[in-house]
Amino acid sequence: MSLVLDPTAQDLLFREARTANAFTEEPVTEEQVQAIYDLIKYGPTAFNQTPLRIVLVRSEEARERLAPLMAEGNRAKTSAAPLVAILAADNEFHEELPALFPHFPQAKDFFTERPVRERAAGFNAALQAAYFIVGVRAAGLAAGPMTGFDFAGVQKEFLDGDHSPLMIVNIGRPAEGASSPRSPRLAYDEVITTV
Amino acid sequence: MSLVLDPTAQDLLFREARTANAFTEEPVTEEQVQAIYDLIKYGPTAFNQTPLRIVLVRSEEARERLAPLMAEGNRAKTSAAPLVAILAADNEFHEELPALFPHFPQAKDFFTERPVRERAAGFNAALQAAYFIVGVRAAGLAAGPMTGFDFAGVQKEFLDGDHSPLMIVNIGRPAEGASSPRSPRLAYDEVITTV
Repeated sequence: MSLVLDPTAQDLLFREARTANAFTEEPVTEEQVQAIYDLIKYGPTAFNQTPLRIVLVRSEEARERLAPLMAEGNRAKTSAAPLVAILAADNEFHEELPALFPHFPQAKDFFTERPVRERAAGFNAALQAAYFIVGVRAAGLAAGPMTGFDFAGVQKEFLDGDHSPLMIVNIGRPAEGASSPRSPRLAYDEVITTV
Repeated sequence: MSLVLDPTAQDLLFREARTANAFTEEPVTEEQVQAIYDLIKYGPTAFNQTPLRIVLVRSEEARERLAPLMAEGNRAKTSAAPLVAILAADNEFHEELPALFPHFPQAKDFFTERPVRERAAGFNAALQAAYFIVGVRAAGLAAGPMTGFDFAGVQKEFLDGDHSPLMIVNIGRPAEGASSPRSPRLAYDEVITTV
């Protein structure tokens, strides 16, 4: 076996981990979310941009605002999830760059144009969204990531014009039968070529 | 501690892992890349799209074609890296969807328009690019991901009109002093809010 990561961790993060559509009632604590962030904040991004921002939807009032913005097929499971996280990209991340990338503070100057920033923020926050899913699994929890929701509505209700929603993630301890059967994956030769 | 993932694995994948700018001469084998893919192929994407495609640049001829397309600051380290991987998004991923997402083959119909496909491919391949970086680390190797290159030139030389480059990743065993000092990260409260 060519991997150094031990098999238990491989199973926890990838092989046995599954997207969950139903959860037990066990709450997801603030301490768990802090531990997840404290791990995944180290995941690399270009110039250490780290544009991911997260809104944890916890209150009944906020949950009620979110429900009608979810695609119909995602509504009930999101309302029932112990924790719902809105993942967004900060399109004004460049303001933080001199502090975040101190050995090359001029990096900020690459991002004077908003469309360039939006592309960079979207891409690098997507990398961080993947680290976040891995982090949720590292906490022994299951993630239910979704892109089926009203993006403009979620931005208006929960974010602002400088923050673009990327994904909404249900989080919790998976219930029995929480996942569909595993779908097939592409074979190595369908994905990877050598030149 | 709220994480289930053991501390050794946390260090390997996130806490101690660093972006590397220099590598030893130890080669990265085909078996290692296969093991990485066999792990990270399970990372979740929307509708199991899995649009990531990878070109491994191994031959001298291919390396020589790539070098002038790298940003100047990335050129020497890319030429010297044991393995260089071009990560790309397959904008025609929807052709595979009925096979990849068999319990809802109609998902393909969501992607009849090319701009919709390109957005989905870019986002989901970015998630997979992050899984790939985690997988490289799971193999005990270091990744050096870069977005500083001529995107149109790399697409023309190594891909085709249906595949958009996302990132180029140098891979190998890190040399002494291969990494810059760790840059700061945003605090929990700067990233995460609760409503």
